[in-house]
Amino acid sequence: MTGAEKRRTARISQILDAAALCFVEMGFHRAGMAKIAARAKMSPGHIYHYFESKEAIIAAIVDRESAKAAERFAELDAVDSNELASVMTERAIQSIEEKTDILQSALNMEMLAECQRNPEIACIIQRHDKYIRDQLTHLIGNKIGLDLAEARTDMMMVQFSGLANRLLRNPDMDLSSMIALMRQTMQSILTPDTIGDHV
Amino acid sequence: MTGAEKRRTARISQILDAAALCFVEMGFHRAGMAKIAARAKMSPGHIYHYFESKEAIIAAIVDRESAKAAERFAELDAVDSNELASVMTERAIQSIEEKTDILQSALNMEMLAECQRNPEIACIIQRHDKYIRDQLTHLIGNKIGLDLAEARTDMMMVQFSGLANRLLRNPDMDLSSMIALMRQTMQSILTPDTIGDHV
Repeated sequence: MTGAEKRRTARISQILDAAALCFVEMGFHRAGMAKIAARAKMSPGHIYHYFESKEAIIAAIVDRESAKAAERFAELDAVDSNELASVMTERAIQSIEEKTDILQSALNMEMLAECQRNPEIACIIQRHDKYIRDQLTHLIGNKIGLDLAEARTDMMMVQFSGLANRLLRNPDMDLSSMIALMRQTMQSILTPDTIGDHV
Repeated sequence: MTGAEKRRTARISQILDAAALCFVEMGFHRAGMAKIAARAKMSPGHIYHYFESKEAIIAAIVDRESAKAAERFAELDAVDSNELASVMTERAIQSIEEKTDILQSALNMEMLAECQRNPEIACIIQRHDKYIRDQLTHLIGNKIGLDLAEARTDMMMVQFSGLANRLLRNPDMDLSSMIALMRQTMQSILTPDTIGDHV
């Protein structure tokens, strides 16, 4: 990466972080480009140089998440099929322990609420979700070789979304004492024929 | 209930339903009392006769949920301890099948997003959450007699919140094919010592 590219990347990152804070603190509707610029300590013109609208900023925030996820999926795709279920469970637990934070959770809620009134944002969120789902379904169905791969994928994602949601409703939640239960739940979602009795 | 009480209850219900729609469609900030009144086909003065603010309306929406939950918890409290885990699982599955809808999910996201900027709403949401948690923890810890009752409670609630969240992210989600996995997950959360290996 050249110096100019690095500066550009840093600048964009600075805008996305400032925008995320503004969306959470003011709500998407009130967080105008001028407020995002002030928060990022840039001129509004400078922001418009990179992003034409708040929706474009949301798209970039979501794309940044997709890029991080793509790296993790590439790593998982290289894991031996026999070990994949346990590696996926441990990675999931690790990411819950490290990365479950209030700001990210609140931003997700704000974006999901906005989905109902802004079709452009709904489209961005649902496209990202489909990307994550396709990757997980590939790992679960093709590599681990489980049936009901789409449903198992959605159930894995229920755990992540649900936890983010819980964190906002119960700020005293003891994440560490939930980890063992979460591991067990994820293991059972990634285990064959355990649901045979109930189908 | 007298005729006057019935009319009052119906009127309040009409306001709460209209407000819920306005909050989802416009966002909490833009959904003013005048807009809620128009949606409920009442005069603003009439709305203020029942509710002094939007926050009071949110509190009443949440109280209505608490009252419904209280009925369900009273029924569960009367179930034989030995059967409680399976009855709770079946009731949970039933309520997922019957009541998981986009409007309620979107309203929850809107309220959770608003929590970050409105301490009064945060307080209402967190008090409701604590009420539900206390009831579930009582059933899981005292009646079924499981350890880690608080963590199991939060994990049960992760399933509900997570599903509501998924519905907004993946409108094509096939709920019926997830039901068997969801049942299995809830059973394992309500089963003793299955997590012994991992603690």
